[in-house]
Amino acid sequence: MPEKVITMAHGGGGSRMLELLEEVVFPALGGGTLLDAEDAAALSLPGLEAGGRIAYTTDSFVVRPLFFPGGDIGKLAVCGTVNDLSMRGARPLFLTLGLILEEGLAFKTLEKALVSVRRWAGEAVVSVVAGDTKVVEKGAADGMYMNTSGIGVIPPGRHVSIRGARPGDVLIVSGCVGDHEAAVLSRREAFDFRVEVESDCAPLNGLVEAMLEAAGGKGADTGRETPGGRAYSRDGEAAGLRSGRRENGRSSNKTEPPAEPSHDGACAVHALRDPTRGGLAASLKEMATASGVVFEVVEADVPVREEVRAFCEVLGLDPLLLANEGKLLAAVAEEAAPVVLAAMRAHPLGKNAAVIGRVLEGRAGEVSLLTPLGSNRLLRMPSGEHFPRIC
Amino acid sequence: MPEKVITMAHGGGGSRMLELLEEVVFPALGGGTLLDAEDAAALSLPGLEAGGRIAYTTDSFVVRPLFFPGGDIGKLAVCGTVNDLSMRGARPLFLTLGLILEEGLAFKTLEKALVSVRRWAGEAVVSVVAGDTKVVEKGAADGMYMNTSGIGVIPPGRHVSIRGARPGDVLIVSGCVGDHEAAVLSRREAFDFRVEVESDCAPLNGLVEAMLEAAGGKGADTGRETPGGRAYSRDGEAAGLRSGRRENGRSSNKTEPPAEPSHDGACAVHALRDPTRGGLAASLKEMATASGVVFEVVEADVPVREEVRAFCEVLGLDPLLLANEGKLLAAVAEEAAPVVLAAMRAHPLGKNAAVIGRVLEGRAGEVSLLTPLGSNRLLRMPSGEHFPRIC
Repeated sequence: MPEKVITMAHGGGGSRMLELLEEVVFPALGGGTLLDAEDAAALSLPGLEAGGRIAYTTDSFVVRPLFFPGGDIGKLAVCGTVNDLSMRGARPLFLTLGLILEEGLAFKTLEKALVSVRRWAGEAVVSVVAGDTKVVEKGAADGMYMNTSGIGVIPPGRHVSIRGARPGDVLIVSGCVGDHEAAVLSRREAFDFRVEVESDCAPLNGLVEAMLEAAGGKGADTGRETPGGRAYSRDGEAAGLRSGRRENGRSSNKTEPPAEPSHDGACAVHALRDPTRGGLAASLKEMATASGVVFEVVEADVPVREEVRAFCEVLGLDPLLLANEGKLLAAVAEEAAPVVLAAMRAHPLGKNAAVIGRVLEGRAGEVSLLTPLGSNRLLRMPSGEHFPRIC
Repeated sequence: MPEKVITMAHGGGGSRMLELLEEVVFPALGGGTLLDAEDAAALSLPGLEAGGRIAYTTDSFVVRPLFFPGGDIGKLAVCGTVNDLSMRGARPLFLTLGLILEEGLAFKTLEKALVSVRRWAGEAVVSVVAGDTKVVEKGAADGMYMNTSGIGVIPPGRHVSIRGARPGDVLIVSGCVGDHEAAVLSRREAFDFRVEVESDCAPLNGLVEAMLEAAGGKGADTGRETPGGRAYSRDGEAAGLRSGRRENGRSSNKTEPPAEPSHDGACAVHALRDPTRGGLAASLKEMATASGVVFEVVEADVPVREEVRAFCEVLGLDPLLLANEGKLLAAVAEEAAPVVLAAMRAHPLGKNAAVIGRVLEGRAGEVSLLTPLGSNRLLRMPSGEHFPRIC
């Protein structure tokens, strides 16, 4: 029997599409509100208190190849969106899934990717509640593209933001950098050099919860003390320094709160970012810029696997520029850093967590790298002319 | 000066991507939370009451050509998602936008599509709060694909669902069908026949609000009477009949309410669907199936523009199978139908609204079409082998 493949009719919104959904998509994803055949899922938001906030994000995935050591496009789609929500201190709840399929794609390839979506949604304890499927002609896509969007609830009093880093903070990275991009590149035909490393692709919401709990995640709003002590002593000072940060430039959208609270008594984890495209280098530059501060990073303290280091040396790459899919960069109040670091190391996804630098006053967005040779170089924002389609 | 085009580096997550965002995307979309450079937008949900529900949906858009009479991919992306939210009786609030761009795409083409996103988001009074941009090689996409997801708040007491149609209901369509697909197809190279019709692409949230208000949108929860009188007299009967509907099949997701309320005293607009891919035919079949009822439709009562009818006759197409992007199908309690129809006709997007049939007891999912010749034929679910990429 010939292998079943996607045809244009599977995108037509009729019985053929229904067949595809019932034969492959629903069984692989496991149903839930997807089976309701509604135009939109109707959902309550558990944990959302009156006046509370949600986090909302989206990502498309065009990774090549679709399957690679340690992951695949489906795992990436779930983790990427879960992680973006987690970087706001949100508890991820719901995902949507948009599929763009190329005519000729094997049913079993699609199924494998969707089974992975289901598995990792389960691991991250989120539900795929709505989806969409489009089909384009052979040659008008490259196998399969996925888009996910996600919603999470931000517990009251949590104000984690890329703009939150302030002088005195300690910079922590949750583990070895570069694994994801090294794993994906090593499976490209163009590379002879194979590296025995798996992608770090993983949902970070559990790790972030552990960090925020250790740091007194709900801050002064709940009247709780931060385990790390007086984590907020620098607030007054920081508030003045933050004037250098990028202006908010909000449009007339009246529905958002006017601005992030000024961290009075908020959580000791001030800022989070997951260093995906552009690697740790881009995340450092982005966070320092958005927060209006200077970062001083000790290059030798950034954890990098031996295999990845060797891979980079052979190919002339910088591990700081390689994408990660299961790592985070955090700016944490100095006083709380030991307890946050301990909580991270106690978590499977943070066992190689390390302090890599600190936050200083100065020219907004400057990232100074102390090299192993003892010199100091300014980190530049990568241009993006690295390798395409690693996520 | 050569025309600026998308290069692979624009997808790399570095300074080149930032240039693209700052030069084209942010100015065109107008900023808001997009400018915050956060991993996810943090949002409050105005109108969400304690225990209230949201509607959440997603859609990808691969329409060809990108620009057509009456619309373009950007307008389509906004309206498609706004409409899906509206079909649950939700008030749309926020959208996300995922872009997959092909290497070589002109900046100005992207800009034109994004300006359209902004314009129609403004018309629909929704905000684009998060976005993502990926670039794939020349030949790995067809110019540009867009994905939107959307969130809306469902006011308490509103339980509009495709499963809500019940015997005795009247079927109403909001205007002439087939305009969108006719407009798009007439711009394809393969078609010699031009039809002077514009796509009906439009955000339907205003029309739906008008309908629900006329029908006593909040139902018994607010203690209000339905203007149309005793719209709910058939509830007891309907509850029994609805046992034939598709089983809900929810997974172990505990976060959703266990089931839709049984419509005791709910709004007289029982079910809504926007007939996009698969046309009115697919929506009739889907709604009759999901609601476990029979539909009887008078073909001659379905409004079709003369130009579209002529286009269909020349090409041997059925207007009921053509996609719409600014129309809805509603199942409305008989007693409330006159007032709902009047409210629709008073709205610019519903001025050609018409009663096209009624809901009967019987074999779930059967749609009987009374033809102009007086015969009765059973409508079949279209297979989807119509024309690809019309949205």
